[in-house]
Parts: sequence; structure tokens; C-alpha cells
Amino acid sequence: MKRYLLGETPGIDSWQMEDVPAPVLGAGEVRVEMRAWSLNHRDLMVAEGTYGGKRQPGLVPLSDGSGVVAEVGSGVTELQVGDRVATCFFRDWHEGDLTALKAKAARGGAIDGILSEQIVAPANSLVKAPSNLSFAEAATLPCAALTAWNALFDASQLKAGETVLVQGTGGVSIFALQLAKVAGARVIVTSSSDAKLSHAADLGADEGINYRDNPDWERAAFDLTRGIGVDLVLEVGGTDTLPRSMKAVRHAGRISIIGVLTGGQVQFPVGYVFSKNIRMTGIYVGSRSQFMAMNRAIEQADLHPVIDREFAFASAPLALKYMQAAEHVGKIVIVR
Amino acid sequence: MKRYLLGETPGIDSWQMEDVPAPVLGAGEVRVEMRAWSLNHRDLMVAEGTYGGKRQPGLVPLSDGSGVVAEVGSGVTELQVGDRVATCFFRDWHEGDLTALKAKAARGGAIDGILSEQIVAPANSLVKAPSNLSFAEAATLPCAALTAWNALFDASQLKAGETVLVQGTGGVSIFALQLAKVAGARVIVTSSSDAKLSHAADLGADEGINYRDNPDWERAAFDLTRGIGVDLVLEVGGTDTLPRSMKAVRHAGRISIIGVLTGGQVQFPVGYVFSKNIRMTGIYVGSRSQFMAMNRAIEQADLHPVIDREFAFASAPLALKYMQAAEHVGKIVIVR
Amino acid sequence: MKRYLLGETPGIDSWQMEDVPAPVLGAGEVRVEMRAWSLNHRDLMVAEGTYGGKRQPGLVPLSDGSGVVAEVGSGVTELQVGDRVATCFFRDWHEGDLTALKAKAARGGAIDGILSEQIVAPANSLVKAPSNLSFAEAATLPCAALTAWNALFDASQLKAGETVLVQGTGGVSIFALQLAKVAGARVIVTSSSDAKLSHAADLGADEGINYRDNPDWERAAFDLTRGIGVDLVLEVGGTDTLPRSMKAVRHAGRISIIGVLTGGQVQFPVGYVFSKNIRMTGIYVGSRSQFMAMNRAIEQADLHPVIDREFAFASAPLALKYMQAAEHVGKIVIVR
Amino acid sequence: MKRYLLGETPGIDSWQMEDVPAPVLGAGEVRVEMRAWSLNHRDLMVAEGTYGGKRQPGLVPLSDGSGVVAEVGSGVTELQVGDRVATCFFRDWHEGDLTALKAKAARGGAIDGILSEQIVAPANSLVKAPSNLSFAEAATLPCAALTAWNALFDASQLKAGETVLVQGTGGVSIFALQLAKVAGARVIVTSSSDAKLSHAADLGADEGINYRDNPDWERAAFDLTRGIGVDLVLEVGGTDTLPRSMKAVRHAGRISIIGVLTGGQVQFPVGYVFSKNIRMTGIYVGSRSQFMAMNRAIEQADLHPVIDREFAFASAPLALKYMQAAEHVGKIVIVR
Repeated sequence: MKRYLLGETPGIDSWQMEDVPAPVLGAGEVRVEMRAWSLNHRDLMVAEGTYGGKRQPGLVPLSDGSGVVAEVGSGVTELQVGDRVATCFFRDWHEGDLTALKAKAARGGAIDGILSEQIVAPANSLVKAPSNLSFAEAATLPCAALTAWNALFDASQLKAGETVLVQGTGGVSIFALQLAKVAGARVIVTSSSDAKLSHAADLGADEGINYRDNPDWERAAFDLTRGIGVDLVLEVGGTDTLPRSMKAVRHAGRISIIGVLTGGQVQFPVGYVFSKNIRMTGIYVGSRSQFMAMNRAIEQADLHPVIDREFAFASAPLALKYMQAAEHVGKIVIVR
Repeated sequence: MKRYLLGETPGIDSWQMEDVPAPVLGAGEVRVEMRAWSLNHRDLMVAEGTYGGKRQPGLVPLSDGSGVVAEVGSGVTELQVGDRVATCFFRDWHEGDLTALKAKAARGGAIDGILSEQIVAPANSLVKAPSNLSFAEAATLPCAALTAWNALFDASQLKAGETVLVQGTGGVSIFALQLAKVAGARVIVTSSSDAKLSHAADLGADEGINYRDNPDWERAAFDLTRGIGVDLVLEVGGTDTLPRSMKAVRHAGRISIIGVLTGGQVQFPVGYVFSKNIRMTGIYVGSRSQFMAMNRAIEQADLHPVIDREFAFASAPLALKYMQAAEHVGKIVIVR
Repeated sequence: MKRYLLGETPGIDSWQMEDVPAPVLGAGEVRVEMRAWSLNHRDLMVAEGTYGGKRQPGLVPLSDGSGVVAEVGSGVTELQVGDRVATCFFRDWHEGDLTALKAKAARGGAIDGILSEQIVAPANSLVKAPSNLSFAEAATLPCAALTAWNALFDASQLKAGETVLVQGTGGVSIFALQLAKVAGARVIVTSSSDAKLSHAADLGADEGINYRDNPDWERAAFDLTRGIGVDLVLEVGGTDTLPRSMKAVRHAGRISIIGVLTGGQVQFPVGYVFSKNIRMTGIYVGSRSQFMAMNRAIEQADLHPVIDREFAFASAPLALKYMQAAEHVGKIVIVR
Repeated sequence: MKRYLLGETPGIDSWQMEDVPAPVLGAGEVRVEMRAWSLNHRDLMVAEGTYGGKRQPGLVPLSDGSGVVAEVGSGVTELQVGDRVATCFFRDWHEGDLTALKAKAARGGAIDGILSEQIVAPANSLVKAPSNLSFAEAATLPCAALTAWNALFDASQLKAGETVLVQGTGGVSIFALQLAKVAGARVIVTSSSDAKLSHAADLGADEGINYRDNPDWERAAFDLTRGIGVDLVLEVGGTDTLPRSMKAVRHAGRISIIGVLTGGQVQFPVGYVFSKNIRMTGIYVGSRSQFMAMNRAIEQADLHPVIDREFAFASAPLALKYMQAAEHVGKIVIVR
């Protein structure tokens, strides 16, 4: 069985294929014949050693994948051989609030990921794939889509008729746009590119703001909401954007903070937070239970993820380089 | 100025037109030139004297209407002359929870309604009409649509991907079907008529169950949800249906209880309620704040109410008789 | 190792002691040397065969107990040898909403209970006992106390300053009284006995209503809340009391329905439910996560359960007879 | 009738007494014979012209006061002559979420305050004073106590058994300590003074951390919560403390941000927010509806505010100077 692991030297070339025996199946576990995987920006940082925590050579990369259940261990009742499944980002976050303990087992970061022809995993660390999606499509969901779902609906309870502002057209933002439209919300997208805004409009965005042309995009957002402010901002930027998000949001509005792009220190005018009663919530992917709820919405709406390009399993390192080039719109997928 | 009032004798003929001076405008009030009204089953009961509380001869009937602001009193800041508005069912329920005090001023029941060429009303007992709706359409919203909105989203937090079962094709149920679809939910409709189920399907219903053919419709609902049960039931029936609704709903599911059709005593098997952790919430229309939130969703989705038939103001009593005939699907409207 | 099981013949004498080998420990499990147990009314019904579901001869009775961890299986990280623990009512309801699957494994009902000198159980089906409680005290918590906690705080979000009406002085009601006082609420207790009301007052009850003297106790409750109604009713009665509870509760008030005493059909006036926007929630004990939260409150307040009487393990059947006699106030405990 | 107003020159001496005719009573309004007032740090900033917004000479200062209803305007049903009342900080925030419109009418800031022998105010901008409090005590509630209540219970739903960390011993923090204890929570207080920590302990604080001795107080907080972190932090500091608060709080913990002491820019490590799923909510006093809920808790617990010192109405400017001296612990009150 072939799989990839992180080599000793950090960098874009650090994914190395190896051939290993198939893993042994234990109680409560299932064997999955993997069929597709998808990349997140985090995977690039993990390869380069710039992600939080110490880089672990020998770690199997990637959190996101899909496949078919090939064997079922004792005590497994929820899954059967032949079921189409996707992996959960957190192996142990089944439901309820995130805890320090649950947060420890992030696939492709703290523990082995799933860029392997086969994986053996606890049955309750997988979900059934939405029936309307291909393996490639299902593989895009575990991190980016679930982050968007959690940010919109669980952390910030977006309702039909409300307005959400989505920053940029990265993986999480595109999913947020699609999911918010499914739920009857109005979506404003910001971008530095008219082409990307046009693409967002094709996906259903109601309004686009080019922040090259409108550096004070928070004013444009205000104007688009009759001077009231948006109900929810999906904050993916950080230092530069958070103060603007606070201006763009209405009184008692919500900001879901996604940590995809920038780390470090963020500065904000504290006066806005209390005088406008703003609620900010940090989002770190989500639980298995949330994943299952999202999948029902995806099936119901027949929503399809946007895939930019597919690579073969044997050429997986090319997918990582393509991620680094940062010219994609939508998800980068590896198939087999 | 012409208006209708309830005559001394209860019955279908009790709406009587009279000619009165235009009402005087006070502080905080606006004058509305009414353009359309709509009927609810309650209005029939009020005319016949079978609605809760003592029948009040001289009362102006109807809670639901729309019109144009013609004059604005001192201290009014939210509305201007020319604004298109709809009436709130409860004059004093602006936001927050219902209280005994707020519940006292139900238009067309405890206090004068709005079946009048002109009304004078506190500005905060009106909402702006959705910009995408005609006066006739906007007039249908105050009672039935808001009840559906409250039942789905505020009392029971319906989410995209969840399944809601809507009983029948009455006014509240049709709005619930439309609004649930806007929010990305799956909708199962029950009816005794295939024609009505076909109409519901045209409006977006995902599934229909004819309870003449399937008296145990709760089993059909279970089968349609993979043996899990529906997430939410909009209960409009009562004695006959509540026990079935409890079986149809999943563990930790919700039942929103609408009191439109039946009063009296309802019986249910208490074991289901606690062993399945069912949550039941009584719904009594909703607040002005909820009305405004609903209108944003209606605008965003460009949702249009279903109107069965329109009557002229001068022929309003015919509308009441048409309501009594109970052959309508959708709202009965009076226009001027 | 000695334990009890249900004999073939239903009835008060059906607990039979047997001597069996100690159970084998598996992965993820711990061995608990049991020290105390407590009875609920359900245990009497299970013995008599009147509880829901088919009576299972050979079943080990009781859901509630406490003891010391004596051995720890592989993969167990949360518990260590020597930890003082209590059993969860539901073996598999760890957190989140109740589901049909989680509801299947109720100890002492659908699956083996814990009236045994030793038990082997999944580590995540136990909680650490509150550090301030004896084994006898900790053994009283799993069913009655957790039901009260869930009913007050999770299902119905009781807040400091709110008024809760607790029906009677059974196990759940006494815990509800104590827990509500810890949280700063005002508590009204109903009872048919002045002696029991006096006992409730000693435990902190603010008001008592003797419903022999005041059959219309809902009016007394109204008077005690300045004519507004109570915020929350803990409904344990059923047919006779639910309609009164609906009158006693305020607009937008809550009723937590506990199924301890009566099954069968319950009748209520549906008009109250919707016209007062009442929310009713069925309560079926609670999850392990809720149990842990409750224990923190018990420790913080140094709350001690009320124990009526203790029996020796060898005399456990006498405890069941004492339960049947129904003269206790507080919990009946078996110790070893 | 005597009252104070802000003079032309900003500074500690800018409160000037004047004699004016009693105000005229309008519909929906009541006349209150004021009996006591209390100061907040904001009032010092308003006098000095350092509070947000343009300083308005001629403005009547102070938001917090209590008195007796002396006259009732037409249409007022909730209040009667002789009722003991307290003022709301926001005249127009009756219930529901804060909006830009509601936020405009902050007493003693944007609109006239209440440092006057008599005030005329909309009846729904007042609440009944808790029956267990003196006028001096009731006058301390409108800003500081309500901010604490909102921060603990509405924004962050503190529950019995949870741990809250309260920063310092300022007005909001002392109320938070008292209210959290009423609700069964565990309270950790930080301070630079052992004497103040001792005072906090007398008021019920479970733990105290002197941050002079323990500059890394967030570690002490972690140790006091078994390495899990506190459930809720009441953040009153800002730049220096927010990053530490983020470390002190548990995964999925809450931080209520009170803007009392520092404005300007606050910096925080964004990684903590998302990797720990932290929820931060800005608190800006609260609504009248929240005030009424708090008062019920104050009555139920017979909680009494901590008053440092009382000044006579004629010597009100001395109270402001005493506030500036910053040596008080508890509220500074003016009585008449």
C-alpha cells in the first residue's frame, strides 16, 4: 500500500511516497479504500514547517479525503462495507463543544493524516459522504466546507434574509457563499479581482466589492445594507481587515473569525466591540455531528463544491506546488 | 371614510359598512390609506362569535392589511409619507417575548381591526411592506405568514438540510412550505387531497403524503427520513394529529403548535414526550421585530404569497362567505 | 462476586442474588468496585414488569451507583485507579442531543444495570463523583438529580431571580428544589402534606402550597408571582396537573415534563399552549456531559442530597419494598 | 428646581448648579422626585471631555439615579404615584438587541442625564427599584450592575458550577462578583492589592490572584481550574489583559468585553481565538428588560450593592472629585 509522509527537510518537496503494509483493523474501526483527497492552505504550511506546533517528519499529510468502506471492525454499527465516506478533520471531536482533548487529534497536523491508499480509522471519525457528490467533491468538505458551515450557522446562526459579508474567494469563503445562499441569506463578497467577483456572482453572490477600487470596503458594505451594517462577517484576513469588519457589521452583529491566512497579532479598536455589542467567535473547523448536519444541507440543495483542478495520486506533490502557486479558485483535489 | 364593523347579531352576515369621519392623528402615530386586506379563519370565528373572548359588536374586523402612509404624527422617525406599510397583528408586541400585556391588543379581536379605508395607528405597530410585493400580497403577511416564520425559525430554529413536516394546505401551512424552502429545508406536506399535494409540489414541497391513503402518515414520514423521524412538525390539527406528530418527529425533535383550526382539549401520550425529549412550543403569531426579519427573507428570496381570490372593498362580506365555503387554497384578499 | 438479577416472576420479590465470576476488562473500560447504589421509582416498575418495554428476566437492576476504580483498561486516559466515580444512566449518551441510538442503552432497563459488587464499564459511561459527597450521596445522582438539572438548566435555562414551581417532594423534585436554590431562583413547592412542605422549606423552598387545602393551586402560584405566572414548572404529575401547570406559567413560560409518575394519556387545553406561547420540553435524564456540569455545581455549592434511609447490599430487596411503601422523603440507598 | 449641567470649560470643576422651572409632563411620561444618584468612571470622562463624542456644554450629567414617582402622564399603565424607580442608562433600549437607534439616547452622554431634583421621563425608560434596596443602593444599578448582569448571564450564559474570572475591583467587577455568586458560580478575582482581594473574599470571591505577585495570572487561573481554563472572563482591561484572558479561558470559553477603563487599540493573538473557539462579546450596559430581570435576582438574593461613600446633592461636585481620586472601593453615591 502506498502513502505519502513528510520528509526530514521542510519545504515544498517534502511529500515522499513510501510503500507499507496495509494497517491492521481494530475494534470500532473501519478500513477505507481511499478515492480522493483535497488540499488546504494549512497543508502547505505543514509541509514548510510554518504551521503551529513542531513539524513532525514521518507524518502522513492531509486531513481531507473520501473513499469506500472496505472492511468493518467489531462493534461498528453505523457503517457497512461499501459505504461512501469522508474523513473528519478532528478524529475525536464527535459532538458538543471543542475541548483541549478533542483538539489534540487534528489529522495531518498533530496526528497522521490520510494521504494513503488505505486508512484504518475509528468509525466515528468518518461521515457518510453526501449521496449527490462524487468522491472528488466529497473530499473537499472536511476542513473548508465545515469551517464555513460552523462559522455561518452554528457559531453565528445565520438566518434567511440576513446579509453576510464573505472576504475573498478562498476555499472557506467560496463554501460560505454557497452555503449562505442555500439558507436564503444575502451575500456580499469582497475581492481584489473583478474576475473573481464575477465568478462569485456566478455562484450566487448578490453583491461584489472590489477592495482595490474601494479600499474602504466597509463603507460600501454599509451602503449596501441601507446604512445598518451587515449581520455577519466571515473574517478570514486578520490584522488589516478586522477593524474594517467591525465597522461593516451592524449593532449586535456577529464576526466569525477563521484563522486560515494570517497568524500573529491582530489589532482592533475595542470601542467598537462594546459600543456596538459585537460578538466575535473563533472557528476551528467543527465536529462530526456538524459535518453530518452540513451534508444533509448539501444533499437537499444538491450543492456541488467548486473544484479547480485534479491531480493523480502518483503526482500528489504537484498538487502541493499548485497550491503554492496560489492561482486556483476552488479546491485542489487528488484522485485515484 | 368607510369602514366595516361587527353587527349585533353573530353570523356570516355580521360585517356592516358605515361611514365615519376620518380619525384624528396623535403623537407617534401615522395615517394609513389602506389598499388591501386579507382574511384568516379567525376572522370567520370572530364574526360568528365562536372565537375566544366575548364577541364585541361595533368592533372593526380584520388584523391583516396594507396601505400607504398618508400623514405622519409628531415624533415619528421611522416612517414617512408615501411609505408602503403592512399592519402588525399585535399592536403592542414590538419585540422580545410575548407577555400578557402585549397579548391584549390583538387587532380585529380584542381591539379594533383595520377593515377601514383609513386607519390611524402607532408607527411602531406597522412595518414597511416588502418591496417586491403588491399591496394585495403584502396584506396576506401579518397573521399567517408571521405565524409560519415564528414557528419555523424563532420557536424551532429550522436549519438548512433539516426536514419539516407541514400539515395540510391552509394559510399558515402554505407559508411555512414556502419559507422553509427559502431556508434550504426539506418539506413534507400532508393532505387529504392529491390535487392539493400537487399544488404543494408546485410550490416546492419535496414530498407529499395523502393521509386518506395513508392514515398512519407518521409511518410514511418515518420512512421518508430513513427511520430517524422529521426534525420539526408544524402542528395545526390538534386532537387527532398531535399523537401522530409525536411519533413522526425524531428524538430531540420539535413540534410547533399552531392554534388555527381546533381548540378544546388535546390528548397525547406523555411517554413519547419525555422518552424522545420532544420540545413543543405554542405559537401565537409573532412580534413586529420578527415581522421585519421575515420581510427581509421575503425580499431576498423574492417570495410571493399565494392568493386564491380578490374581492372589492365594497363586497368585503362576500370574502367572508368565501372563507366560510372553505374551498380556497391560498389567501383571500380584499382590495381597494 | 455477588450481584442481583431480575427473577422470572414479576413482583416485589424478584431481585435475586447470585454469585458470578468477576467480569473481564476490555479496551476503553474500567473495573469499578461498587460502594453504593440508589433506587428510583422506575426500578420498582422494572421489577414489577410495568415499565415500558418487555420485562427481561436475568437483567441486573438499577441505574444509579458509585464506587472506586479498581482497574483501568487500555486506552483509558480520563480515569485512574482510585478515582471515585458514579454511573451514568445512559451508557452511550456522552453529549449532544439524545438520539434513538443513544436512548437504547439505559442501565437497569434495556441493558444490565449496576447492582453488583463489581462492574466493568466503558470509562466514558462514568463520571467522577463530586469530591464533597460520600459514596452513598454520590449514588443518588445519576437519574433523579440529573433529570432535575437538565429540566431546570439545559431544557429550560432557569436564571437567577426567576420563579420555578416544583410539584411534590419526590426524588426529582427535591433535587430540583436544591439545585434551583443554588442558582439563585425562587422556588414554590406543591404538596398534599404540610409536613412535607415544612421539610421543603428547611431545604430552602421560598413558598409552599398545600394542594389539599388549595385544589386550585395554580391560582395560588399566580398570586405568589404578582399575577404574572411562574417562569418554569417542573411537571411530574401528568393528566391531573398539566392543565393547571399551563395556567400557572407565565406567557412565554416553560414546562419541563418529567415522566416519573404517570404514563398513559395526558390531556391539555391547546388554547393555552399557543395563546401563552408556552414551551414544553420532555426530559429523559441527561448526558454524561450534563452530569459533569452538574457535579461542578454540586461541589461549588457543597450541596448534599437528601437520603431517607440506607440498606445493606445483602438486604437490597428490603430497599425495594421500602420504595414500594412510598413513605420516604429523599433517596433510598444501598451501601456496602 | 435645582439641577446640574456641564459648564463650558472641560474639567473636574465643570458641574454647575442652576435653578430651573420644573419640566412639563407629557403623554406616556412620569415625573420623578429624585432621591439618589451614583457615579461611573464615564461621568468623569464626560466632564473632562475625554469620553467618545463631542462634549456638550449644558448637558445634564449622570445616567444612574433613583427616586419616587410624583406624577403620571396620560397613557401610563405600568407605574403609579409613589412607586420607587430607577433610571435606565439607555432611554430607548426597552428590550431585544441593541441597535444604532437605541444606542443614541444614552443618558448623561448623548442626551440629558438625571442629576436634577426632578426629572420627567418616559415611563418605559424607568424600572421599579428592587424592594429590598434603599434609594442610595438602587441608584447604583443602572450602569455598572446591569453591565455585569448582561456580561455574565445574557451575553455569556454563566451557569451554576462554572468559573468566572473577574478583573479588578471596580464597580462592574464588584457587581459581577456578587451576581455570579448569587447564581452558584465560582469566582476568581484578580487585583494588584491584597487588601482589595481580602475585601473581595468578604463579598464571596472563591479565589484571589494578586497580579503584582503573579504577573502571569493566567497561569494561576489555569492551575485553579485543574488545567482546563476558566469558563468566562469579564475583561475590563484591554490591551494588557486581553491576550492573558485568552490564555486563561478554556476551549469554547467566553470573554465578555467591558469598555470601562481603556479605549484605543487592543492587540491579541488571533491564533488563540480560533484554535480555542473563543467567543468574545462586547457589552454596552443593557436593556430595560434585562434590568427588570436583574432586579428580580437582587430581590431574591437580597443582594446589596457596595457603597463607598455618600455625598449631598448640594455637594455633588465633591463626589466627582472623589471619583477622580480613585481611592474608592464600591460605588460613590449622591443623596438628597
